[in-house]
Amino acid sequence: MPLPKSGYSTSGIFHLLPLGLRIQDKLSLLIDKHMSSLGASKLSLSSITTEVLWRQSGRYSANSELLRLKDRKESGLLLAPTHEEEITAIVAGMVKSYRDLPIRLYQTGRKYRDERRPRQGLLRAKEFMMKDLYTFDHNQETALETYQAVRSAYKNLFDNLKIPYLVADADSGNMGGKLSHEYHFVSPKGEDNVWSCSSCDYIANEELVEKRSSSTTAKSSSTSSSLVFKAISLDRTTAVHIHIPRPPSMPPSMPPTWSDVHSFVNLHAIKNTGVDIDTGIESSTLASLLPKTATEVHVYDRAVSPNTEPSLPDLTRIQPGDRCARCESGKLGVQKAIEVGHTFHLGTRYSEPLGALIAVPDSTSKQPIQMGCHGIGVSRIIGAIASLLSDSRGLNWPRCIAPFEAIVLTGPAASDTDGQEVYDTLCRGQSTNEGEGEVVDTILDDRADKSLGWKLRDADLIGYPVIVVLGRAWKEKREVEVQCRRLGVTSTVALGGLRECVVRLLEKL
Amino acid sequence: MPLPKSGYSTSGIFHLLPLGLRIQDKLSLLIDKHMSSLGASKLSLSSITTEVLWRQSGRYSANSELLRLKDRKESGLLLAPTHEEEITAIVAGMVKSYRDLPIRLYQTGRKYRDERRPRQGLLRAKEFMMKDLYTFDHNQETALETYQAVRSAYKNLFDNLKIPYLVADADSGNMGGKLSHEYHFVSPKGEDNVWSCSSCDYIANEELVEKRSSSTTAKSSSTSSSLVFKAISLDRTTAVHIHIPRPPSMPPSMPPTWSDVHSFVNLHAIKNTGVDIDTGIESSTLASLLPKTATEVHVYDRAVSPNTEPSLPDLTRIQPGDRCARCESGKLGVQKAIEVGHTFHLGTRYSEPLGALIAVPDSTSKQPIQMGCHGIGVSRIIGAIASLLSDSRGLNWPRCIAPFEAIVLTGPAASDTDGQEVYDTLCRGQSTNEGEGEVVDTILDDRADKSLGWKLRDADLIGYPVIVVLGRAWKEKREVEVQCRRLGVTSTVALGGLRECVVRLLEKL
Repeated sequence: MPLPKSGYSTSGIFHLLPLGLRIQDKLSLLIDKHMSSLGASKLSLSSITTEVLWRQSGRYSANSELLRLKDRKESGLLLAPTHEEEITAIVAGMVKSYRDLPIRLYQTGRKYRDERRPRQGLLRAKEFMMKDLYTFDHNQETALETYQAVRSAYKNLFDNLKIPYLVADADSGNMGGKLSHEYHFVSPKGEDNVWSCSSCDYIANEELVEKRSSSTTAKSSSTSSSLVFKAISLDRTTAVHIHIPRPPSMPPSMPPTWSDVHSFVNLHAIKNTGVDIDTGIESSTLASLLPKTATEVHVYDRAVSPNTEPSLPDLTRIQPGDRCARCESGKLGVQKAIEVGHTFHLGTRYSEPLGALIAVPDSTSKQPIQMGCHGIGVSRIIGAIASLLSDSRGLNWPRCIAPFEAIVLTGPAASDTDGQEVYDTLCRGQSTNEGEGEVVDTILDDRADKSLGWKLRDADLIGYPVIVVLGRAWKEKREVEVQCRRLGVTSTVALGGLRECVVRLLEKL
Repeated sequence: MPLPKSGYSTSGIFHLLPLGLRIQDKLSLLIDKHMSSLGASKLSLSSITTEVLWRQSGRYSANSELLRLKDRKESGLLLAPTHEEEITAIVAGMVKSYRDLPIRLYQTGRKYRDERRPRQGLLRAKEFMMKDLYTFDHNQETALETYQAVRSAYKNLFDNLKIPYLVADADSGNMGGKLSHEYHFVSPKGEDNVWSCSSCDYIANEELVEKRSSSTTAKSSSTSSSLVFKAISLDRTTAVHIHIPRPPSMPPSMPPTWSDVHSFVNLHAIKNTGVDIDTGIESSTLASLLPKTATEVHVYDRAVSPNTEPSLPDLTRIQPGDRCARCESGKLGVQKAIEVGHTFHLGTRYSEPLGALIAVPDSTSKQPIQMGCHGIGVSRIIGAIASLLSDSRGLNWPRCIAPFEAIVLTGPAASDTDGQEVYDTLCRGQSTNEGEGEVVDTILDDRADKSLGWKLRDADLIGYPVIVVLGRAWKEKREVEVQCRRLGVTSTVALGGLRECVVRLLEKL
């Protein structure tokens, strides 16, 4: 009986059975290769961290997804969702001068999040595997060089996976450059929206995407054609009136309902004005929630503002087909996507509160270290690829993370030694005419109590990239059948040419 | 600056920095090798398990060291200290017939225990690494074959570590054979007592050790020379009177104090009579704790019992020098030891309550699977070896788990390319007269801002098995100095003989 890829325990908790663990281990090794190219050293921080550190960084109260431990001493222990605090505290204790930098440290380990609603298997779980890299540099310039080096390593890593991905601008930062990027797989199962231009290379996430405002619209509109949504601030002290131009699809006679706010208002843009509204509360119930002392705030889209400042925001929601802000002719389109990686220049966000200071040249006072943090969702990549490449017959793993690159299946015509001989041909580096050549990571299914048809269905289900069958042709001509479902290939080859044939197929996967 | 081996976070919580992680990874790989020899498959179970499963096995209430999670739904989640429940539930769902067995599954992962008093670093921590193997067989006979196969794999594994170890009988089981064994490193830091015979190969832990009772003593003694300790049962319903022969060291006129109970009474033997006493409560305070309805129980050592049954227990504490129960001439001695491994035949302890049943030949009713569980304390082995082999100059790692087998240190006379050349000689499989030969896992310390003396002290501190120095002899004759502190070896060799010289040293480590 084949071991399932991953076992389900309780909501948001998963076990990795042997084949699943091989997939995860292969992905970890691939990550190690690319982290090593950056000169990063691997470590392993405890899954347990402390409230004290998280209070010091200011992240404790803001995080409602922290899993707390009940221990015998009420020690304030947490299961860490990320490790910025711990790694900053460790490096702060070891590094005194700019001469000790740069340092690049990473780990691949379990992370924890008290998900409100765990869903989609490995895509959103309470316990998940993540690669987290932390970088430490002595000034902004070297930190930005590090950031570019990480982006380049991420490019190589995602190229290796051979799954199409998008790199979206995720934060415009405050240092002149783009200092945060998200790495996405396009997928209908995704929970993120990634916008891209039809013409230029502009790609941005939902929070950051900008459209080109039609300046004529801004001038010709008047407040008379505006739509007003009434909202309440998150802290419930303020009534917020949101003014946007009335969309063409909405006749003037029609009053807006609260659900229209999600269709027409860019809530990220509202947040960027400095107002946090509670989007879960409908206008009709506001009156009962607002205290008598409530203040009132008006937020205007640039097209309907009574003011004429040039810097007023565009508060309308971006729609597919809106014009790109970065080029003349492009139009914006949106795709559902799964975020699988993130690079982030942190600056002194953690080094300052946690006192990670170093002596620097030409200064008598110590300076906070310039940091970066760079994640890769290991469980997410596995879950996303499983869903992206599967078809009605089963999973389909890309070569670099497949539990085995090829499986050899024996039919009734093949003896045990026959199976072993074909297996050896693939996975032993024996001398052949083509030279030593590449060996193929292979598994042999020679179970005597299963039919060849059963084994074929099982191999398809598990998703080995290449299947090698000792069937009728083996008996007649000592030839094997090579199948690759993803490439739609089935061919019959003699033993002498088998390894080369399989290697050629794998190169395309 | 050298990265410390492991970083301390909070009481009982440790981080593994890069060199420490390499040690742990090497030990994991060594374990993988020996588990693979058993045909065991590796998996990775979640660190999180559920109260529900632990209640089903009956282990929930008995365990005061479980770390519970506070999640948003009060879901009754735990951090698992071991995984018998989870693995039994998984296998129960996959296996239907004896034909699906044997199955051997293991993992190497983090375990959790709410230690009352974390201490001695990695030896007793709240979070620690363990290898846990679970075996599943269809009857007792095959289960015992599995048990012997595991013992043999453990022997090979512990032999590879090249650290002296003891294998102690730990439970006499109920199936005629010895079905639990503990693997110990002898160490003054140990918290376990391991008893061994001076003559035969009898080794047993504190719970199980037996001495030979002098039958003449049993006959000649009378109740008049007995000593009585008054104790209270753990559930505080019963007064327990423990009768043992008065030890020769204690004159008849002297009344016993409560602390004497620990010196003279074998508390494990008391427990084996079926009486659980509260050893923390002194006789003098008993009266106030006992309810009026308290019953009274008398427990007699065989030498002072009014009865003459031959099966009466020996309740006196075993002392060094007592006679061995297994041979004629041996005497028992005791050593402090650190438990680093355990093999355990479980039988149907978990398969029965968790419903892991299979169809078996010649029976119409399904039978519970015969299980075993077999642990290796990965963090403990690292902590124990660190303390056992260290000296005043630093740590000393055995070859098989050293972070690197050798380090190359460059002095001021050596250029960057010199250091690289020596490094390449050791760790690249270049053709030499001795054939391809073994490569040495090497690290190069060519830091320009550190003196050779500083690098030597640092290398000693970290505990690399072999140190190769490019010092004065390099400048004069292109020879390197090879140091091995543990073997007390220092020699000068030419580059051509370096790899062979290092390999010869490593073979002894």
